[in-house]
Amino acid sequence: MNYQEILNAIYHQIKSKPNDGELPSYIPELARINPEKFGISLQFLTGEEYEIGDAHEQFSIQSIAKVFAFSLAISIVGKKIFERVGVEPSGNAFNSLVQLEYEKGIPRNPFINAGAIVVADILISNLPNPAMDLLTFIRKAAGKEIIYNEQVYQSEKKTGFRNAALANMLKSYGNLENDVDKVLDLYFRLCSISMSCNELATSFKYLCNGGVNPKSNEQLLSLSQTKRLNALMQTCGFYDEAGQFTYKVGLPGKSGVGGGIIALYPEKFTIAVWSPKLNPKGNSLRGMKALEQFTTDSQLSIF
Amino acid sequence: MNYQEILNAIYHQIKSKPNDGELPSYIPELARINPEKFGISLQFLTGEEYEIGDAHEQFSIQSIAKVFAFSLAISIVGKKIFERVGVEPSGNAFNSLVQLEYEKGIPRNPFINAGAIVVADILISNLPNPAMDLLTFIRKAAGKEIIYNEQVYQSEKKTGFRNAALANMLKSYGNLENDVDKVLDLYFRLCSISMSCNELATSFKYLCNGGVNPKSNEQLLSLSQTKRLNALMQTCGFYDEAGQFTYKVGLPGKSGVGGGIIALYPEKFTIAVWSPKLNPKGNSLRGMKALEQFTTDSQLSIF
Amino acid sequence: MNYQEILNAIYHQIKSKPNDGELPSYIPELARINPEKFGISLQFLTGEEYEIGDAHEQFSIQSIAKVFAFSLAISIVGKKIFERVGVEPSGNAFNSLVQLEYEKGIPRNPFINAGAIVVADILISNLPNPAMDLLTFIRKAAGKEIIYNEQVYQSEKKTGFRNAALANMLKSYGNLENDVDKVLDLYFRLCSISMSCNELATSFKYLCNGGVNPKSNEQLLSLSQTKRLNALMQTCGFYDEAGQFTYKVGLPGKSGVGGGIIALYPEKFTIAVWSPKLNPKGNSLRGMKALEQFTTDSQLSIF
Amino acid sequence: MNYQEILNAIYHQIKSKPNDGELPSYIPELARINPEKFGISLQFLTGEEYEIGDAHEQFSIQSIAKVFAFSLAISIVGKKIFERVGVEPSGNAFNSLVQLEYEKGIPRNPFINAGAIVVADILISNLPNPAMDLLTFIRKAAGKEIIYNEQVYQSEKKTGFRNAALANMLKSYGNLENDVDKVLDLYFRLCSISMSCNELATSFKYLCNGGVNPKSNEQLLSLSQTKRLNALMQTCGFYDEAGQFTYKVGLPGKSGVGGGIIALYPEKFTIAVWSPKLNPKGNSLRGMKALEQFTTDSQLSIF
Repeated sequence: MNYQEILNAIYHQIKSKPNDGELPSYIPELARINPEKFGISLQFLTGEEYEIGDAHEQFSIQSIAKVFAFSLAISIVGKKIFERVGVEPSGNAFNSLVQLEYEKGIPRNPFINAGAIVVADILISNLPNPAMDLLTFIRKAAGKEIIYNEQVYQSEKKTGFRNAALANMLKSYGNLENDVDKVLDLYFRLCSISMSCNELATSFKYLCNGGVNPKSNEQLLSLSQTKRLNALMQTCGFYDEAGQFTYKVGLPGKSGVGGGIIALYPEKFTIAVWSPKLNPKGNSLRGMKALEQFTTDSQLSIF
Repeated sequence: MNYQEILNAIYHQIKSKPNDGELPSYIPELARINPEKFGISLQFLTGEEYEIGDAHEQFSIQSIAKVFAFSLAISIVGKKIFERVGVEPSGNAFNSLVQLEYEKGIPRNPFINAGAIVVADILISNLPNPAMDLLTFIRKAAGKEIIYNEQVYQSEKKTGFRNAALANMLKSYGNLENDVDKVLDLYFRLCSISMSCNELATSFKYLCNGGVNPKSNEQLLSLSQTKRLNALMQTCGFYDEAGQFTYKVGLPGKSGVGGGIIALYPEKFTIAVWSPKLNPKGNSLRGMKALEQFTTDSQLSIF
Repeated sequence: MNYQEILNAIYHQIKSKPNDGELPSYIPELARINPEKFGISLQFLTGEEYEIGDAHEQFSIQSIAKVFAFSLAISIVGKKIFERVGVEPSGNAFNSLVQLEYEKGIPRNPFINAGAIVVADILISNLPNPAMDLLTFIRKAAGKEIIYNEQVYQSEKKTGFRNAALANMLKSYGNLENDVDKVLDLYFRLCSISMSCNELATSFKYLCNGGVNPKSNEQLLSLSQTKRLNALMQTCGFYDEAGQFTYKVGLPGKSGVGGGIIALYPEKFTIAVWSPKLNPKGNSLRGMKALEQFTTDSQLSIF
Repeated sequence: MNYQEILNAIYHQIKSKPNDGELPSYIPELARINPEKFGISLQFLTGEEYEIGDAHEQFSIQSIAKVFAFSLAISIVGKKIFERVGVEPSGNAFNSLVQLEYEKGIPRNPFINAGAIVVADILISNLPNPAMDLLTFIRKAAGKEIIYNEQVYQSEKKTGFRNAALANMLKSYGNLENDVDKVLDLYFRLCSISMSCNELATSFKYLCNGGVNPKSNEQLLSLSQTKRLNALMQTCGFYDEAGQFTYKVGLPGKSGVGGGIIALYPEKFTIAVWSPKLNPKGNSLRGMKALEQFTTDSQLSIF
């Protein structure tokens, strides 16, 4: 199968249609991105790489970074993490606060905001220098220098009242060990990482390879942790659209409001897409379409 | 790998531990089952079969039959089915009615009760003899005679007030075309099918084989429908424990309150387990453990 | 104070403004009422009566009849009624089903639909001929012949799927003793009573007079039951607008989707208003305005 | 009627029974109060005063102070306050956050915490020295020196994560004009006021007297504002027990978790009760009983 041709066809077909969806308005750094940006990077464990469009331009990966934070946290505390955060899909956005209340402060999974805030708290409790240590982990996955974007971080901080509400709720249920402000600070940093499609696809290879970075041979997660993290992305990686993504794309993955999506086929490949305009559920509209088309054309869904 | 030895080890290890969980109390036919029943059937597409325990004894498959009903419905009306039922996990049980209200009468997926009731309505609108035609479809999948259990059907009917509430809600939102009583009748029949582990594992082979019954070579679903149905089972097959099952077992599957669970690895195998006592989420307690152990020992998770 | 002049002024002022709001669409009998109908009847315990407009034309009193049903039920079973229905306001409409679920099948108060369905069930369990006996009670209050409207009853029955959903939910929680269909039948009858403003104001005098019909001197409720029923109307008489009504009008009262509102000042007077067009909360738009203006002009609020 | 005898009888009867209920645990200052404290003060507009027990000992009035804050706010901004806070009862505690979300950041009424936080924000936006100006208003009502309790204030501040969650939610909906921390600070101060039953009963006389402090003859609220505030206390003064209180006591009133309750009969009297142990809804258990007994014995309910 000629993957480059598949990517080319998808890219041009999608480009030829109106660029629907909306840029997120609440963060100035995301609102003023050129909405025509569109890139794909496909990387096989065998070493083959295919790409098209703006695959080397960095963008704000936002919630995709929650996967790194969760990886680091579970690599440190193991299964104990599930005393403080669940593994169930969240139902819809509307429910986030209700569910947190109904389930007594235990977020349904580590990829909804409340869950990622708990993960940030765990990192703070277990690491000497959490913000730096998290970056170190991401660099190990990426095999290169990655930094926090100061402007995005400041924007998140200035407008993050809903996240502050969640953190205070968690604290009221005793599910935050550290100061609310300190935890939020790490959480907002976490959301401020920038990467390109190429870097993302490379960084997620450890999840495609049983927990081992195939380039450095460093074991970042155990095989069992890796399989379970992939399963978790399958059911919880796309907020209220996890079912839709699983249904249409059939690969575990994670999206961010910066318009990025990463997906992977265990033991085969990773694929990263970026297009800034979002559908009403907050996932990249062209990104979802590109991945659906890719697994349809390539027949590479895990189901 | 010696699968028979793996099944033996799982069976004896689980049998040696206390038989926790509860029998469901609301249906007399389920409440008086011998709680020690325990069987497993593992069937590969290659033809290899392994089994242990009560693998040939029939039990009430309950909600597992929703997969057959949905298969038949989507084979008739295609994608249009998603105008009336979604593909998203339902969050928790508590939400079923709220969500139905919040989402204006569109059930989140075809495996929650509200969704299966809509599927029953679609079958009634599109088939001359829906109860019989559904049985015919199931017989094609099973390759043998399958019947409705009259006693279970009567019990469901007599105690199904919550399902009647859901059906009336759906009707009030205009999402039932037929009479509430007629739809409930088919729904209660659907829940009354009995099968053994052996029969279940055989019946689900079409979902493991791109939609084709490998014995009869009959195409029951298209390849694309099959992949998507598997994806749907992955995210929605276990009510409020879909995430847990995906996380621990890593296979698409479906459970029923009769204590049965079916799971499958696309293009490889199907596996059915039966143990009547349920965990608090309504899924077979020993069944979940057996499958978790199986994918751990065999390394056969799709992630 | 010249009450007739006050009524005249209110009537003409309101008539001179656009007739906003909507007729309810789901019941044909309500949808085709002349929306310009507008009547007021004010009756003091002293015997003075004032009226204006269509005060003698009958209309469907709908939920206002729940007050009679509850009066009859509490006169029979006393405080025990509160084991099966609460006395708290319901929050908003959106919550009705959620609350029923959250509070395990105990409706928050007897004036929301679920509560009135439970009241109907209590009447059926305690009366030889509930539909007739209820009518007898209402006739005692009204001092004249009152009947069920057959057409409205049939319409309610044909479209009452949401009420059927509530009844089935109540049954599933064990909070209905009788058959769902039988209970719904009485409930739909209850909603089909027609009265004029004049008849309504007369009928509610027992609640204004310590439980005694001032004309017949018959004791329909005890003093204590009467005070408490008035209190209940104050907090729960207007669905999600009970606070608004209490705030603006300052009298206990009850509304119906037929556009009628009854209110009363204990030991002083009753006042009934009718105007068919409803505000978004389902209460008569002109009726609310007329009563607000009346208590403002007359200074006759209980607060 | 001999009111002193009525109070004596109520006091001794209640004292003779077990002191059920619980002290609130989350604020040390409330948790270590002597649970046997019990006082009542009854004050008529005519000047008659009756009291019994610990009627002159100060306690933390907590949420009762929200009535003063709301009085001050509505006296400044008038009806415009209802663009930012509603007048409907809140349904149950469970819903607080859901409702805030469902109703887009407009709290249902000014007496739930979210509503009082908005009121605090309004005071900050409209007063040069809000904490001091609020105290000045309360002193005008009380006719004497009243102060914030520093220890209670510090405790509230240290444990108020749920209130911080609410404030951040309000801010995320644009319904707070000032900094979250500044608003919370005034809110926590507001909750820290101490008064005795005697002082409370005196302070609430303006609400019993058409808005005018009967001693100083100062108009604190207009007659219309006064009536409406009383109506608001009737429907919203006791969280999820407003219906129960209205039903059993039949007077407008307000409770606080410090075990105090104030109630009033317009144009007649005010009555304050204090007993620290709370029922499961967070209202003084003995206080509720005392007031129910009082309106039963004296027949002084407004209904």
